[in-house]
Amino acid sequence: MTTVGDIGEFALIERLSKQVDAARLASPGGAGFRLRLGIGDDAAAWQASAGIVVQTTDTMVDGVHFTEATTPWKDVGWKVLVANLSDIASMGAVPLCGIVTLGLPPGLDVASVDALYAGMLEACATYGALIVGGDVVNAQRAFVTVALTGACAGEPLTRAAARPGDTLAVTGPLGASAAGLRLLLQGKADTAPASLIEAHRRPRPRIEAGQSILLAGGRCAMDVSDGLAVDLGKLGKASGVGVRIEAEQVPRAPVLAALGEPDALELALSGGEDYQLVFAAPRQTIEHVLEEVRGAVIIGEVTADEPGMVRLIDAAGTPMPLTLAGWEHLR
Amino acid sequence: MTTVGDIGEFALIERLSKQVDAARLASPGGAGFRLRLGIGDDAAAWQASAGIVVQTTDTMVDGVHFTEATTPWKDVGWKVLVANLSDIASMGAVPLCGIVTLGLPPGLDVASVDALYAGMLEACATYGALIVGGDVVNAQRAFVTVALTGACAGEPLTRAAARPGDTLAVTGPLGASAAGLRLLLQGKADTAPASLIEAHRRPRPRIEAGQSILLAGGRCAMDVSDGLAVDLGKLGKASGVGVRIEAEQVPRAPVLAALGEPDALELALSGGEDYQLVFAAPRQTIEHVLEEVRGAVIIGEVTADEPGMVRLIDAAGTPMPLTLAGWEHLR
Repeated sequence: MTTVGDIGEFALIERLSKQVDAARLASPGGAGFRLRLGIGDDAAAWQASAGIVVQTTDTMVDGVHFTEATTPWKDVGWKVLVANLSDIASMGAVPLCGIVTLGLPPGLDVASVDALYAGMLEACATYGALIVGGDVVNAQRAFVTVALTGACAGEPLTRAAARPGDTLAVTGPLGASAAGLRLLLQGKADTAPASLIEAHRRPRPRIEAGQSILLAGGRCAMDVSDGLAVDLGKLGKASGVGVRIEAEQVPRAPVLAALGEPDALELALSGGEDYQLVFAAPRQTIEHVLEEVRGAVIIGEVTADEPGMVRLIDAAGTPMPLTLAGWEHLR
Repeated sequence: MTTVGDIGEFALIERLSKQVDAARLASPGGAGFRLRLGIGDDAAAWQASAGIVVQTTDTMVDGVHFTEATTPWKDVGWKVLVANLSDIASMGAVPLCGIVTLGLPPGLDVASVDALYAGMLEACATYGALIVGGDVVNAQRAFVTVALTGACAGEPLTRAAARPGDTLAVTGPLGASAAGLRLLLQGKADTAPASLIEAHRRPRPRIEAGQSILLAGGRCAMDVSDGLAVDLGKLGKASGVGVRIEAEQVPRAPVLAALGEPDALELALSGGEDYQLVFAAPRQTIEHVLEEVRGAVIIGEVTADEPGMVRLIDAAGTPMPLTLAGWEHLR
């Protein structure tokens, strides 16, 4: 095994630069984009057609966001890119340029870093982003941070634009990633349904769905990364509204049917990392989006309740208990 | 002591958002800039006047880039911003928007994070940048990553544009930061000259100098972050040229005089983190820059030597020994 400590920072950066070059990623963001300086200078430089720049970042830390058991390095690369791409999608933007920070323990094998980059580059190639630079630092535990910019053709979608009376919808089924993670943590990787493992390791950002929401005249969206109920709490708080979800309408991933209720509902409400978009708009706008985005469904409505309040009801309108459990760091 | 684990991720983010709001930073980048969405959404969004976007990142890891003994948290915040600002400066750009990733052990006290942000905000206020978002994750050892965008009014300066025959210059004195670090590591913080400690803890990015180089028609610059000799090796490699430095011309920080030679020269050649810019251009362009940038001096010239070769000569032109020592991570 050759470790990153064996070859050192400079040789590692050269190796990763070559891997990025070899991927021959296409120019992102449409006709107006021109990369001026990629990897290898003090900063990257690029031009995009006039418009609004969006900027986000996401990190995965070994032992916190993933372990060797749950996520092979190539999938870590895919996932950290997708977490960023999903933020871009939720603004109604398209991705442009990513910058990567690697925190690496010197004893980590170079093959793992190669695999990490292979996963990131696969996500870039699939969703139209570039890797234009980065930084490598020594760290006790491995982490990877991606900072991604994007371009928005209109006014960016925000989580602060929901209004009482708006209809609430989600772009597709929820809960499969969390179900997959549970099986992986139980050591059942080999016997679990492949689609659940895939859902956890290879989530898909809804970039086109974000574009559809923007084009339909939507103004409010966010991505479901920590769990639907918790994330709707954040959306409500940011918008100064409450939300009411109808339990039967919350789309469970079909593969969850085998688990039965209430487990499937619970996973769909509290599982993170499916990276669907949740969005709110007047009914007519929502219907335009539903025509465009296959799998998108209405799940409830925006209320004049106390900001951030999330209520769950059954088909008869009777309140159901709802645990606002979701991932919180540091606790 | 209240730790970040006591209050949790969400309360910490709210606290830091308020601190950023309270700093009331001015809009960066001139008249064309308009912030659309700052902290609190899935991504930040902003508009700048047409031009080229530059994008960089830098990280500081506890125990690697700093320790409690060398750098108080407020200065860590200042320094991580300055490392990024210096990259922006070396492109001839002005800073725009920064996104912050904090990796925090749950046992870290909240006051340290407050101080870190205070230092970052002070640097933002001084040099005209915004903090528009970020991410907080659990980490065994604290780290802070900033990803900073900037705007360039012309063709960005690159380290790959030096040509044989170009004159080589640096924007100001070198070595003081490394001398300060040495004293700090020796536990001499209390008796060391304040200017050396300040040089290490409060370096200044040369944003205006970068602008002057760009406006004078310069095309080649980089910032000295790892050490002049090592960084010139990188510039030479990127440009496909060699460089020759005249030892007597290398500007030592005045406070190094007390150390005597060859120590002062050694620190000026190999000490990092002074964040001066080194730049190469035809003689006439360099002279225009020297008129604008106080403290900037010519240190040598670009040669047709093997790419990346750095030679040191004395006033009579006799070769002098040169150790290409500089900071390399992971080794």
